[in-house]
Amino acid sequence: MQYQSIESLRKTGPLIHNITNYVTVTDCANLVLAIGASPIMSDDVEEVEDIISICDALVINLGTLNRCTIQSMLFAGRKANDLNKPVILDPVGNGASPLRTKITNKIIQEVKLAVIRGNISEIKMAALGMGQTRGVDANASDASDLESTLKIAKGLASSLGSVIAITGATDIISDGNQSCAIKNGHPLMSRITGTGCMCSALIGSFCGASSDYFSASATAVGTMGLAGELAYAKLAALGPVGTGSLRNGIIDAISLMDDPTFERGIKIEDI
Amino acid sequence: MQYQSIESLRKTGPLIHNITNYVTVTDCANLVLAIGASPIMSDDVEEVEDIISICDALVINLGTLNRCTIQSMLFAGRKANDLNKPVILDPVGNGASPLRTKITNKIIQEVKLAVIRGNISEIKMAALGMGQTRGVDANASDASDLESTLKIAKGLASSLGSVIAITGATDIISDGNQSCAIKNGHPLMSRITGTGCMCSALIGSFCGASSDYFSASATAVGTMGLAGELAYAKLAALGPVGTGSLRNGIIDAISLMDDPTFERGIKIEDI
Amino acid sequence: MQYQSIESLRKTGPLIHNITNYVTVTDCANLVLAIGASPIMSDDVEEVEDIISICDALVINLGTLNRCTIQSMLFAGRKANDLNKPVILDPVGNGASPLRTKITNKIIQEVKLAVIRGNISEIKMAALGMGQTRGVDANASDASDLESTLKIAKGLASSLGSVIAITGATDIISDGNQSCAIKNGHPLMSRITGTGCMCSALIGSFCGASSDYFSASATAVGTMGLAGELAYAKLAALGPVGTGSLRNGIIDAISLMDDPTFERGIKIEDI
Repeated sequence: MQYQSIESLRKTGPLIHNITNYVTVTDCANLVLAIGASPIMSDDVEEVEDIISICDALVINLGTLNRCTIQSMLFAGRKANDLNKPVILDPVGNGASPLRTKITNKIIQEVKLAVIRGNISEIKMAALGMGQTRGVDANASDASDLESTLKIAKGLASSLGSVIAITGATDIISDGNQSCAIKNGHPLMSRITGTGCMCSALIGSFCGASSDYFSASATAVGTMGLAGELAYAKLAALGPVGTGSLRNGIIDAISLMDDPTFERGIKIEDI
Repeated sequence: MQYQSIESLRKTGPLIHNITNYVTVTDCANLVLAIGASPIMSDDVEEVEDIISICDALVINLGTLNRCTIQSMLFAGRKANDLNKPVILDPVGNGASPLRTKITNKIIQEVKLAVIRGNISEIKMAALGMGQTRGVDANASDASDLESTLKIAKGLASSLGSVIAITGATDIISDGNQSCAIKNGHPLMSRITGTGCMCSALIGSFCGASSDYFSASATAVGTMGLAGELAYAKLAALGPVGTGSLRNGIIDAISLMDDPTFERGIKIEDI
Repeated sequence: MQYQSIESLRKTGPLIHNITNYVTVTDCANLVLAIGASPIMSDDVEEVEDIISICDALVINLGTLNRCTIQSMLFAGRKANDLNKPVILDPVGNGASPLRTKITNKIIQEVKLAVIRGNISEIKMAALGMGQTRGVDANASDASDLESTLKIAKGLASSLGSVIAITGATDIISDGNQSCAIKNGHPLMSRITGTGCMCSALIGSFCGASSDYFSASATAVGTMGLAGELAYAKLAALGPVGTGSLRNGIIDAISLMDDPTFERGIKIEDI
């Protein structure tokens, strides 16, 4: 697979519209800036169509959805479709409440999505109408073998015509035809809030600079995992690694990432 | 007093529902993860009852209350009561506006609370209908001697059947029968936003893993203070301590906290 | 120019009411605390008038404006005017959508502003009804020579009777009569979200402790730039500088700033 160049992303500097949650929004904005794109967070229904019109991609994140932002997500999503701009969906907590499931399905039906990124529970719920979402984290019982995960990703990708990225210990990405597995990352990342949201914001950044959404998604997911690995290694050399420092280290590592570092560290295989 | 075990909390991994403010929410989520619980932030009235149904405790924080979230707090609180799940209230800025006082009182009347945590001004306002809240910080004139603080805590605890935690230079915790004083912490913590909110989120995490809310509250408050102390000491060894680094250091210290560290560092006495 | 004393600000400890966005709010609250003021974030229309009544200054930031907070901004702004408390406006993304332009203009018309701080695109839009705002960042084509920037600042300052602060590589501040240029800061600051918002929150903190808003604005803008410089220098001594660490370093530097450090480092000239 041909990766996206981080350095050319930095030259392009795409503008990314995020309708997202208030838990991880700061880290997402900082990550978008760190990779070289520019974030704009805007969720009022009166302006979302104007904002997506000046942007290069839209990231919709359901983390703290509410009646106001749900409407904005749909308006912005449809407008992005009209303008042929990629829309990335992060269905946070899909399955944790009927509302989240309903809105995930509604967005999938009404908006053509370039990419959906979630954990195995969230994507299983979207694909099969079942899953065991445990709050916003994946449920252990959903973490099945890679073969079943790949099958779910491929199936949903084919039926929607979207790239599906299922992130976890091993990340699986598929557009229905091509698929890959990525083994970067560090287990401690799961004890930082928003690593999933940040990954989706990175996918948005890469998709805003390229029309090859499969390659953009794989590069983004790999960059996120690799940043966690590099940050962990740097901190571990100094002593026990706490999660506050790891969070900052990830942002540092993304802001310092370049193409040679990415190519040296990426652990990906076509599957 | 028997402390709660941090290591057994990590094994249990309780799920904590937070209806909270957008100022300190990221740090609260990271702290809940650092101690070994899982956070879910959700405040839309259409889903809060579903969310609390899958969680182990509810933390209500009034930091940036608004007409939408107020309704959600009451709905989720009553549902938590129906399901016998502990509810923790952090009445941020109680007394700073008539709205905050009204909503604090309304929640106290309509929801059975396991724990209320606040500074002396906020709790005095809840207990006596008076206090001198200075924005969201305690007013110096409210910081009276420990004996009067204890009397307020005990009185409110007895009348509500809740654990009352008044945090400050010395923390006072009482359930009406048992009371304790904790002297951990560092003065610089008061120049970081959200140390109070984070403490309430920790109380929620411990209450989600135990039905002894007094012991859970004392362990949480002690853990928070001790984390501040340890973080400060580690940073001070390297030079003057800034508040940005201290904030991260606290999250690090919580994520690295274990039972022996806690027991070595805790400065608590029954009173 | 006579600078404001940071140490006397710390003794005064003004209370700053912020109606702001959920992207950078945590960093703004931490910066207000770091400089020695106290933040209260509150945006419900039912309480904003009560909150500004107990505060020393109001900062209005349009970063994630929505129909609820717009009303609150106007209510709080008018009340602040009635009580002769300074109002600082940060018109984030002015020009990025018709809504932002409309609300910026409405606030300018209905609220007497002590200070407006923005990038060149945002201020140009406010001053001339034109500009090329690129999302929330300044557009390169708007970054004209200092002379034209000064002319815009002076013109808007005179017509509104407000201090105008245009921040960028060189910051320009004018009240129509006096003007100054500040050359502190570091280019990497533009890859951290919220350095502009934090600067506005600092201006609010200084204005809450002084009635000389020109001097307060210049001191705040200089403090922000100098903090970025000092943080960068400290980190650069240890290796390549990432944006996560730089963000924390800025908060550290503000919390450790004192008058001698400020006076040694400030690069300002009357123009």
